[in-house]
Amino acid sequence: MLKQPISLESNFLIRNAVENDCDDIMRLINELAVFEKLPDQVRINSETLKQDGFGERPLYSCLVVEDLNNSSSRIVGMCLMFNVYSTWEGKCLHLEDLYIQEDYRKRGIGKAFFSATYQIAVDTNCARLNFNVLDWNTDAIEFYKTRGALDLTEKEGWHMLRVTRQNMELELNKSKSN
Amino acid sequence: MLKQPISLESNFLIRNAVENDCDDIMRLINELAVFEKLPDQVRINSETLKQDGFGERPLYSCLVVEDLNNSSSRIVGMCLMFNVYSTWEGKCLHLEDLYIQEDYRKRGIGKAFFSATYQIAVDTNCARLNFNVLDWNTDAIEFYKTRGALDLTEKEGWHMLRVTRQNMELELNKSKSN
Repeated sequence: MLKQPISLESNFLIRNAVENDCDDIMRLINELAVFEKLPDQVRINSETLKQDGFGERPLYSCLVVEDLNNSSSRIVGMCLMFNVYSTWEGKCLHLEDLYIQEDYRKRGIGKAFFSATYQIAVDTNCARLNFNVLDWNTDAIEFYKTRGALDLTEKEGWHMLRVTRQNMELELNKSKSN
Repeated sequence: MLKQPISLESNFLIRNAVENDCDDIMRLINELAVFEKLPDQVRINSETLKQDGFGERPLYSCLVVEDLNNSSSRIVGMCLMFNVYSTWEGKCLHLEDLYIQEDYRKRGIGKAFFSATYQIAVDTNCARLNFNVLDWNTDAIEFYKTRGALDLTEKEGWHMLRVTRQNMELELNKSKSN
């Protein structure tokens, strides 16, 4: 969580998301999936986001950026994160998504989101900030490296593996029938 | 969390870790770091583990395996996990560490830990299980693939990036002095 909102040249305001922002956050998530040509992959809705982020045990926290000069659709970007744990270093922060509407890019919002995330990680005593990036997104990787990031896949050979729920259920059924 | 302990041929018991297991879990974490020739990288201790895993807002949960025939040092393996979040699929489970003492390997404990983790993910309505593996650990990767895992780095080109706390502080100081 940000200690206080960040104002960008009095045009934009970065602040902690509240429950009422979930419709807007969901709109941005869907927009990103359409842009990536994978709209069918989105299986949650704004109700899921409300329950998971604003209940008794929030699974994530989120920053949003408001366009202060746009009275209709003010939220134009978001940055979603959660804590993870390292058995060597303890509490860490993971940046899951950082998205800004296309017509609001190249105005410093991405950099401000990134700095805000660093500030949150430092303020909450996190040993590291982790995030993932696609290898073809070389511009992003170069930007991240100038901001002090290390590519662990390149340097140490770490691979990310995933088992879908469907595959877990298949495997559990297999072992039951053995 | 496991709904109930799992017994392996009445020699071993897999159960949820409790606060009093933290000294043993820490011993296993250090043992793994020595094995990997990086003992200096471990910056937490068993007090950190107690605070972070057994307070009001646990940052992780852990399974341990007990050797029921060893009266002195019963805990011989552990498996540490936490929830993460996908903006497309919602709640997911991340398996951070799975370690078994060298003299207890090849007895089915690893497979049982893995199945228990699948069961926890399914029972707690997680859309995916994520974990990371080093590319030279080809035996492990092959085993994971036979258990339904997909290598996202290989298939989609995902890279893991990290910023250390030191680098975040450096970057924040830079932007302050600009």
